[in-house]
Amino acid sequence: MNYLLKLSYDGTNYCGFQVQPNGRSVAAAFQDALEAVLGCRPDIKGCSRTDAGVHALGFRLNFHADTRIPAAKLPLALNQHLPPDIRVLDAQPVPEDFHARYAAHTKTYHYYLLNARVDDPFLFDTCHRIWPALDLAAMQAAAAQFVGTHDFSALCASGSSAAAHGDTVRTITDCTVVQSGDLFTISVTADGYLYNMVRILAGTLVQAGLHKRTPDIIPPLLESRDRKQAGPTLP
Amino acid sequence: MNYLLKLSYDGTNYCGFQVQPNGRSVAAAFQDALEAVLGCRPDIKGCSRTDAGVHALGFRLNFHADTRIPAAKLPLALNQHLPPDIRVLDAQPVPEDFHARYAAHTKTYHYYLLNARVDDPFLFDTCHRIWPALDLAAMQAAAAQFVGTHDFSALCASGSSAAAHGDTVRTITDCTVVQSGDLFTISVTADGYLYNMVRILAGTLVQAGLHKRTPDIIPPLLESRDRKQAGPTLP
Repeated sequence: MNYLLKLSYDGTNYCGFQVQPNGRSVAAAFQDALEAVLGCRPDIKGCSRTDAGVHALGFRLNFHADTRIPAAKLPLALNQHLPPDIRVLDAQPVPEDFHARYAAHTKTYHYYLLNARVDDPFLFDTCHRIWPALDLAAMQAAAAQFVGTHDFSALCASGSSAAAHGDTVRTITDCTVVQSGDLFTISVTADGYLYNMVRILAGTLVQAGLHKRTPDIIPPLLESRDRKQAGPTLP
Repeated sequence: MNYLLKLSYDGTNYCGFQVQPNGRSVAAAFQDALEAVLGCRPDIKGCSRTDAGVHALGFRLNFHADTRIPAAKLPLALNQHLPPDIRVLDAQPVPEDFHARYAAHTKTYHYYLLNARVDDPFLFDTCHRIWPALDLAAMQAAAAQFVGTHDFSALCASGSSAAAHGDTVRTITDCTVVQSGDLFTISVTADGYLYNMVRILAGTLVQAGLHKRTPDIIPPLLESRDRKQAGPTLP
């Protein structure tokens, strides 16, 4: 049976999703829970690799297991064996050839900014604090300029393998900034991402919000394909 | 100089506010920061003792220190030496005889309930999860019955010193329940609290929300002065 699961996790205490030689990964914690419930330790296919410190609200993964446990019983069973910072929200059976990574048409990332003089003790693992005040309209105007099919080399960490292979064209279908009190949320939906692309895009939008850049520099920035023309890689 | 400070902290990693012989307290962490900034380790007077795992959004404390540092400079200076789960939001000079505990006319507590089938990885330190669905209107009707000056013995952990001394009359000026999505917030404002009073009150409101009690049993519950008649002490 091939199972597709939806997870939410707080990535603070993990080195990322993918199993790593050094450091505790979300995938390894998940395999421990699978072993406790199913008695086996299948390979798991995640929809994405997330970096250390990245969280997930709707992460999808799949795995094959030779068991008769109905998919609907898996969330409760696995959650009893997972640490509280990882939760299974949903499980369903999928065709044998389903693969969470290849089946993902788009992925959405959120980058949270706290626009305040002082950090918030409850948000320091999930928000990056920025001060002085951000100009929401300027950020929204700049965000709209990223939408479309572009060569995103300028938003790619130098030395990435995608850049080396010239595979740097992606399509952003949605890029928005919303404000709720002192919390700004940057949301990006794309068919794929280059290395550090969301963090560099967020750093560029922050510069627009601080009036260090105007929105109209985004098209020439993308055309330059030059990482140095873009904003900093936010944490 | 007598300084009044406003703090916010995530209490997850502390044994409570008050310095304890065993366990790391918020007060001890704060004294460490004071020592780094002021070179002294003054006694600090908190507006309240908070239990282990209790958080604070607007905790007040005061301390006397023989220093010329302007109060306005203290938040930034102290925050550089405090762990990220404790933040100083504000500081001001107060008269020499000001005492944060005696000066507090009322205190407001919030109890957060997540009304969901599955825990939320981002809220497990700040919310208690309840399932099945809660009836908001029933909780609100029950909450209103607690407002007023009453003997709250029925909402006091047995064996408390206040109960032993018959000092069990308090005035609740506000007791409300609001819902935002699957998050229910119980807010209580009173001139003082008995031991575990908020947690027992919350447990009683949850029973009302689950239709295990009707709101009209609250007055006879209070009259009974019997802890066993009230709901469970929530975590």
